[in-house]
Amino acid sequence: MSKGLLFVVSAPAGCGKDTILEQVLEKAENVGYSVSATTRAPRPGEVDGTHYFFLSRERFEQMIAEGAVLEYTEYCGNYYGTPKKGVEDMLAEGKDVILKIEVEGAMNIKKLFPECCLVFILPPSMKELERRLRKRGTEDEETIMRRIAQAKNEIDTALNYDYFVVNDDLEDAVSDLMAVIRGEKCRKQRNLDKLNEIKGE
Amino acid sequence: MSKGLLFVVSAPAGCGKDTILEQVLEKAENVGYSVSATTRAPRPGEVDGTHYFFLSRERFEQMIAEGAVLEYTEYCGNYYGTPKKGVEDMLAEGKDVILKIEVEGAMNIKKLFPECCLVFILPPSMKELERRLRKRGTEDEETIMRRIAQAKNEIDTALNYDYFVVNDDLEDAVSDLMAVIRGEKCRKQRNLDKLNEIKGE
Repeated sequence: MSKGLLFVVSAPAGCGKDTILEQVLEKAENVGYSVSATTRAPRPGEVDGTHYFFLSRERFEQMIAEGAVLEYTEYCGNYYGTPKKGVEDMLAEGKDVILKIEVEGAMNIKKLFPECCLVFILPPSMKELERRLRKRGTEDEETIMRRIAQAKNEIDTALNYDYFVVNDDLEDAVSDLMAVIRGEKCRKQRNLDKLNEIKGE
Repeated sequence: MSKGLLFVVSAPAGCGKDTILEQVLEKAENVGYSVSATTRAPRPGEVDGTHYFFLSRERFEQMIAEGAVLEYTEYCGNYYGTPKKGVEDMLAEGKDVILKIEVEGAMNIKKLFPECCLVFILPPSMKELERRLRKRGTEDEETIMRRIAQAKNEIDTALNYDYFVVNDDLEDAVSDLMAVIRGEKCRKQRNLDKLNEIKGE
C-alpha cells in the first residue's frame, strides 16, 4: 500500500472553504481531514473533535513541548495548531489528508513535508469577496475592511501554492478540488515506484 | 475566454486507450478529440472522420508540403499524422483537445506545444498486458511477442510524460484521466493571468 498524500488548503475568509471541504470530504474516497487544535473557546454549534480540538492553554503548550504539534501560531491571544499524530497516522494508512490552514502555517507544513501539495481557494473577484463578506451581516464595517485587506495580503502569497481553485460556482469548485486531489495522485513524480513495479523491475 | 489545453495520450497496444478515451470524451465537458489522418485502408467498421481521416498518399503528401500536418510518421508503408487545423481551431475556441498518439509523435508535439500535458496509460503489469493481448485472439504468437517487446520499449519512454494512468479497472482509469484533465487546468502556472485578474491588476 502506498502512503497517502498531504494536501494543504488555504483561503481568505469569505471564499467558502469550509463548505467546499465539507462536500469534498463527503464525496471523495479515502480522503481524511486533519482537525486543528485551538485554545480559543468553542463558538455556538462547534463540536470538539469535529471543528477543532478545544484544548486548555496548558495542554497546548505541553503538546508543543512534546513535539506533538506539526505547526502552530498565536492569533489574538489564542494558539492554533496541527496535531502531528492524526496526520501521520492517516498518511501511513494510505489515506490522503487535507489540512485547512492559513498561509503562514501552509509554508511551515511545506518545509516539513516537501512532497505535500498546496491548494489556494480564490474568490472570483475582490468585489465579489466584499459582497459575500457583507452578506454574512455578522461583522461591522471596520472588520469587513480589515478582512478584505487581509484577504489581499493572503492572495499575494497564492503564488507559493501549486493549484488555484476559484470558488465562483460552489459545485464547480468542489469538482475542481476533487480533480486536483485525484489528478495529483497520477503525476509521474508520485508514481515512479509503481512504474518500476509494472515493468517488473 | 482562455485558450484550451492540449493533452497528448499515449499507450502501448492492449492498454485499453481507445475505450478510456471514448468514455472520457463522452463524459467530460468541453473536451474535443483530434482525429488523426492516415493513408492506410479503413478496417471493417472504421468511419472516415471518426476513427481516422482516410487520405490518399498524394493528399497526405500535399498536406505535409503545405505544413498542414503537425507531426507525422511512416509505419509499415503508411503515413499517420495529426492535421493542424482541427487542433488549433478547438484550442482557440477554448476547448481542451486530446490527441491520441504514439510515443515518438508525442515528443514532437511537446516540442511544438511546450505547454501541452502528456499522459501515459499503463497496464497494471506486463503479465496482465500479455494476458489481454492473448485474449483478443486476433494475433498469432509472433505478433503478440512483438507487441509485448514494443510495449516494453514504449513504457521505457513513460518517464517523459507528466501523468500516468494505470488501466487496472476501466472505470477508475476513466475517472483518473478526467481528473488529470480537470486538475491540470487548476495548476498555478496555467492561471497566473486569472490570479492577476482576480486581484484587479
